[in-house]
Amino acid sequence: MRCTFRHSRQLLVSIGTASAGVPHSARGREQASLTGQRLRELNVRFRSAPLLNHDSAARETAEAILRHLPQGLDVEPCRLLEEGAPVPPEPPAANYQPPPETFTQDGRRIESAFRRFFHRAAPDQQSDSYELLVCHANVIRYFVCRALQLPPEAWLRFSLDHASITWVTIRPSGRVAVRYVWQLRPHTC
Amino acid sequence: MRCTFRHSRQLLVSIGTASAGVPHSARGREQASLTGQRLRELNVRFRSAPLLNHDSAARETAEAILRHLPQGLDVEPCRLLEEGAPVPPEPPAANYQPPPETFTQDGRRIESAFRRFFHRAAPDQQSDSYELLVCHANVIRYFVCRALQLPPEAWLRFSLDHASITWVTIRPSGRVAVRYVWQLRPHTC
Repeated sequence: MRCTFRHSRQLLVSIGTASAGVPHSARGREQASLTGQRLRELNVRFRSAPLLNHDSAARETAEAILRHLPQGLDVEPCRLLEEGAPVPPEPPAANYQPPPETFTQDGRRIESAFRRFFHRAAPDQQSDSYELLVCHANVIRYFVCRALQLPPEAWLRFSLDHASITWVTIRPSGRVAVRYVWQLRPHTC
Repeated sequence: MRCTFRHSRQLLVSIGTASAGVPHSARGREQASLTGQRLRELNVRFRSAPLLNHDSAARETAEAILRHLPQGLDVEPCRLLEEGAPVPPEPPAANYQPPPETFTQDGRRIESAFRRFFHRAAPDQQSDSYELLVCHANVIRYFVCRALQLPPEAWLRFSLDHASITWVTIRPSGRVAVRYVWQLRPHTC
């Protein structure tokens, strides 16, 4: 059996909630553009750019980012990455109380997304791989907890503003680390 | 009894390991300077700037940062914040194996630092408070795990490069969140 020492790397870019109007505003587009520039500076070659389906905010954000990347990536829709309620947060949040069935439905889907996108590099992979996922912050925060083997109910204990970058690395041993987090200026102090 | 709705906020700036030469290099100083500019953009008023004692790397980094802040803060040395081995990491790291007594000694000190610097705002506090702590990454990563009530042995599962910013907010209810993380470009891909 062939041995590999290649890394699998997921770079997650967050999208502000469409209801707040952030991605659709000139500021939201400018932020996504700055994030695209930062991704270009990181000088990595992405294999793919999945994106949630039927979400204009996500598409707009992804397109503003991809404009800066040299490899001509296309948007690849993926329903598994749609925003949702991954698991009831602990401690509970007074202003975030979806019904239990929402957690059940969304949670299954988001867990499926995690299992699809977070894995070691394939044994026959010839070089490190980089995947770009553009999705909303709840999904990213759940992914980070799961990838780091932290309690998933902790997902609401950290914030990710629109157009943030979260870089997760999975080594051949299965060891996982968050290698890099980058955000623009927070909206509110 | 008087009620307060003020927040306590800790902004943690990391210092690269001196052995890697980062803080002492021209690049290390430039990075700290960029971080100072970013802190200035955040437009908050810091109450204090503690710093570990007898560590030229930390002092150099802090001075490069403070030069950009308008309020004329002085460096305040604090031995509790010195770099160390907070707790045996899980999973163990092959290239990081301090003797058990180092974890015992350093762990007690770093836990004391956590209890000293992470707390709710005082009941008589008239406005939100911001504290700036300039210290090495092991200490910051342990603080983040403890503040978020995550298993402290997870501290090595995320990276913080030289001159990163990690912003922790403690609400009057005791609820804690990491509000903002910002890093320059990672040194290595």
